[in-house]
Amino acid sequence: MKKAGILGGGQLGRMLLQAAVNYPVETYLMENEEKAPAAHLCHHFTKGDITRFEDVYDFGKHLDFLTIEIENVNLEALEKLCEEGVIVYPNPAALKIIKNKIQQKQFYLEHNIPTSAFVETHSIEELKNNAHLFPAVHKVSNGGYDGKGVQIIRNIEDCHKGFHTAAVLEKMVNIKQEIAIIIAVGNDGQIAIYPPVDMVFDQMLNLLSYQICPAEIPQSVFWKAEAIAINAVKNLKSPGLFAVEMFADNDGNVLINEIAPRVHNSGHHTIEGNYSSQFDMMWRIMLDYPLGNTAIIQSTALVNLIGEEGHSGDAIYFGMNEVLSMDNTFVHIYGKQKTKPGRKMGHITVISNEKQELLHKVNKIKNSLSVRSQTL
Amino acid sequence: MKKAGILGGGQLGRMLLQAAVNYPVETYLMENEEKAPAAHLCHHFTKGDITRFEDVYDFGKHLDFLTIEIENVNLEALEKLCEEGVIVYPNPAALKIIKNKIQQKQFYLEHNIPTSAFVETHSIEELKNNAHLFPAVHKVSNGGYDGKGVQIIRNIEDCHKGFHTAAVLEKMVNIKQEIAIIIAVGNDGQIAIYPPVDMVFDQMLNLLSYQICPAEIPQSVFWKAEAIAINAVKNLKSPGLFAVEMFADNDGNVLINEIAPRVHNSGHHTIEGNYSSQFDMMWRIMLDYPLGNTAIIQSTALVNLIGEEGHSGDAIYFGMNEVLSMDNTFVHIYGKQKTKPGRKMGHITVISNEKQELLHKVNKIKNSLSVRSQTL
Repeated sequence: MKKAGILGGGQLGRMLLQAAVNYPVETYLMENEEKAPAAHLCHHFTKGDITRFEDVYDFGKHLDFLTIEIENVNLEALEKLCEEGVIVYPNPAALKIIKNKIQQKQFYLEHNIPTSAFVETHSIEELKNNAHLFPAVHKVSNGGYDGKGVQIIRNIEDCHKGFHTAAVLEKMVNIKQEIAIIIAVGNDGQIAIYPPVDMVFDQMLNLLSYQICPAEIPQSVFWKAEAIAINAVKNLKSPGLFAVEMFADNDGNVLINEIAPRVHNSGHHTIEGNYSSQFDMMWRIMLDYPLGNTAIIQSTALVNLIGEEGHSGDAIYFGMNEVLSMDNTFVHIYGKQKTKPGRKMGHITVISNEKQELLHKVNKIKNSLSVRSQTL
Repeated sequence: MKKAGILGGGQLGRMLLQAAVNYPVETYLMENEEKAPAAHLCHHFTKGDITRFEDVYDFGKHLDFLTIEIENVNLEALEKLCEEGVIVYPNPAALKIIKNKIQQKQFYLEHNIPTSAFVETHSIEELKNNAHLFPAVHKVSNGGYDGKGVQIIRNIEDCHKGFHTAAVLEKMVNIKQEIAIIIAVGNDGQIAIYPPVDMVFDQMLNLLSYQICPAEIPQSVFWKAEAIAINAVKNLKSPGLFAVEMFADNDGNVLINEIAPRVHNSGHHTIEGNYSSQFDMMWRIMLDYPLGNTAIIQSTALVNLIGEEGHSGDAIYFGMNEVLSMDNTFVHIYGKQKTKPGRKMGHITVISNEKQELLHKVNKIKNSLSVRSQTL
């Protein structure tokens, strides 16, 4: 059996290992937290720091191949492993481009991939000197994740919130819709494209409200988005799975926002909604099997289950019975011991070919299900 | 989180634990073989003998609930655990009836459930004295499994093949079709019924060739089968999941063959074919959630992947690429290290609403996929 490694033991690792159960593969996982969501589902668990060279190198050197569930891993160790014949998904060169937000933006420019205007900054002074881009988004170049290392700069008064380190300042896009497309790339360069997802945001909370697939977008937007996603992924020149997040503006333009070079939240609905899920697809790529079928079985809506405000501590789930009494509703709890405000604790997928049914159930789920802590 | 135990670590335990990933539950597994298919997928593995009182009792006493993946477990330990408040699925009284083939037959008689004529025998002499039932099937009362402890007795000359111990002799049925129906029973007694499956046998090899769902049976046979299955399961008076195997004869009669009080091979297609799979359903029952939706998403055909004749040793899979290049074909490899002739090594499910497509793909799978050993 092939020996497969995963760096990181969160929900992405958990669902990857759930899909691995179908295939002949021996799984290894490295993660600092022994009770992480994925830790108990591998054949071999290694406690270690995925950002440390020695830990990653020692973990990887006896494996056939390796993947990541988060970009914040030790790149140098992956480069050395690659040189020594361990296959890494995505390859370190692609990961290097994506890990660094400045390089990622420059990559888009080089390959004529439409993206919002930007400048590189290294200090609050430089930030202030680029007021022509305001309102803008300021993002630290390295290590930002899930809202951390990101600030909205509307005007000069906001500049103190910016970052006094290598960062990228991006002109804000007049967003009409956020779309994501997942693309699988096989070892031979063959690609398979999933139908686009529409990420619907709650304008009041500035939070993802739910996502729906297939996205309801004009045909011209679909064509642009698919062309942009394919162009971006092909130019990364790496096998693996890539989630391409894009903005469609009010003028029908499509701009790339960012790429995640791995399984991604915007693809969780594929577990029930598509013949081959993103997790199944990832194993097919790594085990060098034919790519799976990305076609839709039924339309889906997906709601993230987020730790409730004001609750930190051992997680308790309220409303499971209400949600599970709805037909064709699939609950995925990530098994995190502790909840905290805003933490991703699970997701729920609804499948149906009736859009009204999807939206009705999304609303019911949002009103019934919550994660709180035992003690406030 | 609730603490859940599974006795046995084969493919049924493996797929149960795969489904458990979606729910907040802490999993315990007991099994003698540390490299068994399910062993690495639980939170807590205990090496132990599921037929030994002490092992089962010690394993179970700190759990909230417990289930089995094979009937051959220590019943006395389960009875004691039940008395002490651990919930056992199925309950020990139901398991006791099913574990003993004589009691199982008597149970059918008591509840007017149609079944083939039979007598209890304890010796070859008694077997010979019941020639009026020939051709018949002789089954040891306790511990027979997957073809072991079963002999076909066509005439007096065959009697030496019979069992000189407690056994049941059943008149052979003129089988037209073998049908299975899976029924889920919640803690409150509510039931959910899966559509019937047609088990298609290879007459030459006397082996299950493939199974197809929904079964193609006359409406009258469907009604009889469903009524028999419900009657049998309700009278077992136990929550859990039950696979009821039945024969339909050439005269349109339906007879019960046997009941498995657990997830079962005849329900593996539900992973892809039904909204709630048998494994998902089992967790819903045990976690006291509402029962799932048993409706069919698409029709399915299922092929078991069986260890090839003449091959014993470390398993290698041939033809994975051919099979995985077919759309809407789902491979489940059980991760058994060693193959041997006739051993269940995996299964493959095809989904489609076109019967011809199902049968075409079943044939392609049978001709491409095989499990052999590294060395003969």
